[in-house]
Amino acid sequence: MKDELEIFNQIFSTTKEAIEKFMNMLDPVIEFAKDDHERLYYHHIYEEEEQRLSRLDVLIPLISKFESMEDAQAFSPTNNEFNRLLQELNLEKFGLHNFVEHLDLALFQFTDEERSTLLKKLRTDAYKDYQQVKEMLMEINKRFDHDYVDPHAHHDKDHDHLALPNDAQGKKVSSMKKGFSVGSLKT
Amino acid sequence: MKDELEIFNQIFSTTKEAIEKFMNMLDPVIEFAKDDHERLYYHHIYEEEEQRLSRLDVLIPLISKFESMEDAQAFSPTNNEFNRLLQELNLEKFGLHNFVEHLDLALFQFTDEERSTLLKKLRTDAYKDYQQVKEMLMEINKRFDHDYVDPHAHHDKDHDHLALPNDAQGKKVSSMKKGFSVGSLKT
Repeated sequence: MKDELEIFNQIFSTTKEAIEKFMNMLDPVIEFAKDDHERLYYHHIYEEEEQRLSRLDVLIPLISKFESMEDAQAFSPTNNEFNRLLQELNLEKFGLHNFVEHLDLALFQFTDEERSTLLKKLRTDAYKDYQQVKEMLMEINKRFDHDYVDPHAHHDKDHDHLALPNDAQGKKVSSMKKGFSVGSLKT
Repeated sequence: MKDELEIFNQIFSTTKEAIEKFMNMLDPVIEFAKDDHERLYYHHIYEEEEQRLSRLDVLIPLISKFESMEDAQAFSPTNNEFNRLLQELNLEKFGLHNFVEHLDLALFQFTDEERSTLLKKLRTDAYKDYQQVKEMLMEINKRFDHDYVDPHAHHDKDHDHLALPNDAQGKKVSSMKKGFSVGSLKT
């Protein structure tokens, strides 16, 4: 579990920096939006990432706390704080998922060299981290049979429409619910 | 606390139905989206509401459980499950806030009589419920000095840009961060 906590710590610290970069990019877009619709759109995404940032400010120290614990008993579903840690990690899996989609949506609109280069980099990292968090949590949730119900389990089982950039070139993800395809999103 | 739990139960049961109505509205829009960008946009909102719906499926029974408790000791920050209840309620305050914005964004695009009438109704309810949840939680968080840090406290303190529909006609919310204005959104 300690090794996993170290990876979680690294991933969520990295994504914290990524959020800040993304929010900095959105700042002037919100300020100079061409109309109220555009302003609400980016402001809304900005606020969702801001909410995530604030949750990570609580989660990262909690991960660190468990990283430094020597007592193996602490890593048990009978420990309420450990349960809370698992719940928060499960919530932030969706945070990462939603971040990937925020970046994809931005990639449609910020097509200039500078912003699209940064967005693609953030997207690649966030997608990789999302996959890793998902796999680690699937394993951990199996190991600790706690009372957490994954609200998105069917998504993980049936498909994963957040295809890797390399996978997505010219390819449709056919199993996507609602006939969603990502063929042209990631190139 | 019991009276408050009854109101929370009512609000989150109402919003659950509202989410379902909104998701039903998004379904065909996703299916018949004109391009990948539009499809990702609505699919993303759909998934965020789906995540919220799944969290409410856990939260509502937890509220009911506390509603039926006779032991006053249970309503204490020393009870871990009560802490969890407070944390979840605080999280779903943002869920309601984000829902209002999802509805506002939809109102820009679904301008036909049928959909805009339903959206305005859902928006009015969600905004009222958001305000009430916000006020109740501010009071409760003061009463129980637990370890929850509100990630959005500065928003509640400095301003609330989700103006009431009636307030917003032709009026700018001047205190909005990033110069955001809602003057034309709610009419």
